[in-house]
Amino acid sequence: MKHINIIGIGTGNPEHLTIQAINAMNAADVIFLPLKGAGKEDLAELRRHICERYITRPDIRICEFDVPQRQTADRTYAQSVDVWHGEIARIYSELIRDLPEGGSGAFLVWGDPSLYDSTIRIIERVRQQGSLDFDHSVIPGITSIQALAASHKIPVNLVGKPVEITTGRRLARNGLLTDSTVVMLDGEQAFAKIDDPDAEIFWGAYLGTEDEIVRSGRLGDIADEILTLRSEARKRHGWIMDIYLLRKGRDFEE
Amino acid sequence: MKHINIIGIGTGNPEHLTIQAINAMNAADVIFLPLKGAGKEDLAELRRHICERYITRPDIRICEFDVPQRQTADRTYAQSVDVWHGEIARIYSELIRDLPEGGSGAFLVWGDPSLYDSTIRIIERVRQQGSLDFDHSVIPGITSIQALAASHKIPVNLVGKPVEITTGRRLARNGLLTDSTVVMLDGEQAFAKIDDPDAEIFWGAYLGTEDEIVRSGRLGDIADEILTLRSEARKRHGWIMDIYLLRKGRDFEE
Repeated sequence: MKHINIIGIGTGNPEHLTIQAINAMNAADVIFLPLKGAGKEDLAELRRHICERYITRPDIRICEFDVPQRQTADRTYAQSVDVWHGEIARIYSELIRDLPEGGSGAFLVWGDPSLYDSTIRIIERVRQQGSLDFDHSVIPGITSIQALAASHKIPVNLVGKPVEITTGRRLARNGLLTDSTVVMLDGEQAFAKIDDPDAEIFWGAYLGTEDEIVRSGRLGDIADEILTLRSEARKRHGWIMDIYLLRKGRDFEE
Repeated sequence: MKHINIIGIGTGNPEHLTIQAINAMNAADVIFLPLKGAGKEDLAELRRHICERYITRPDIRICEFDVPQRQTADRTYAQSVDVWHGEIARIYSELIRDLPEGGSGAFLVWGDPSLYDSTIRIIERVRQQGSLDFDHSVIPGITSIQALAASHKIPVNLVGKPVEITTGRRLARNGLLTDSTVVMLDGEQAFAKIDDPDAEIFWGAYLGTEDEIVRSGRLGDIADEILTLRSEARKRHGWIMDIYLLRKGRDFEE
């Protein structure tokens, strides 16, 4: 039976690769590399670099493929994602169909495949369509949450307290609900819209890469500085991936 | 200046080690291994195995030290943790004091140092006492959340939805608050106490190790089976580390 490995590769530092991930890459016949279009060349280059550094078998084939853009016009967010996943599932089906009989393919995923990534979901969709016979496994990777905490040298949670991981969209709508809130996928800089000036923010962009930027402080004091930094960095690079933790309260407060 | 590395080593599978973690281990003069007493010998053994497998410099010294038990009598939870951290900080101070001038030490931490682990916090406490001159850095590692999701081959979040990471204590008190709730540090099997039979549970114990057990299903159907499995496994091993995800709803429901 054909086999698909969905491999987490960390957040941009090639040394985030685990031994398990490196072994899984080297067990593949084909490694699939998504191309996400203009402005994302840095990311494609970083994946190629990871392949060059860690692949030791000369007969592994690298297969690059184009990922369509998500269309948002006249659709709810959920509908737009659903249709988009359907399109990507068709592409994955072709890639898997083209694997040699009994062969294996690997998808490399930034961060960890289980967190705000849909490769697992889309592979599941391909399986449920039932026209292809394959199994799959998942290899965990370092997430940007962990890279953020490591760079700031902080625990994500307060002692015995919960952590919420959420999106910019939800933070803007609901405000801060938990002692420790990690915000991913924030295209709208929701941290600057909420009314919680005494919260602490721990922000990072391009985590794990040479271009990493981190800032921390009282939200009321540094929200504007982060907005400016972020906007300049985005212009300079053509893209940005950032994440932050918002924290209220302190350890051992009850 | 002396340097301390706090290194995440994943959840028990030696292949969870990242290249960054392996390089940091090999940059240390001394690797500190905590001994947590009777019933935890398996874990100490696993750490020794990781050292043997990955340390390539012959002059690195392994230093085992005893970790005191947390005393809970006549104290709130926060007080008991605070006092306990103070005791461990004294031990860390001695370990760091004994490092050669300009030397470096490494603490190996299960999972990731930023999530429900206090090594970062305690090192910060030692620094703030001010009697020792050292700096420190943090190396991320694979958490049990990621190992759980990988073994079940599931995303932790529903599309665009938040995730809560919490403790058994809080789940028992508050019930399920979020679409996706990850429960760590659950000594009381809170999943069996909440009234939410239609939630799905994805449970795992000894994740990443040869003894890994995973189960998933409708909470109302399999809570009892998991209770029995967990109790038997705990008796057999003398200890257990487990974790679970509770999920309500489905992708693309709005």
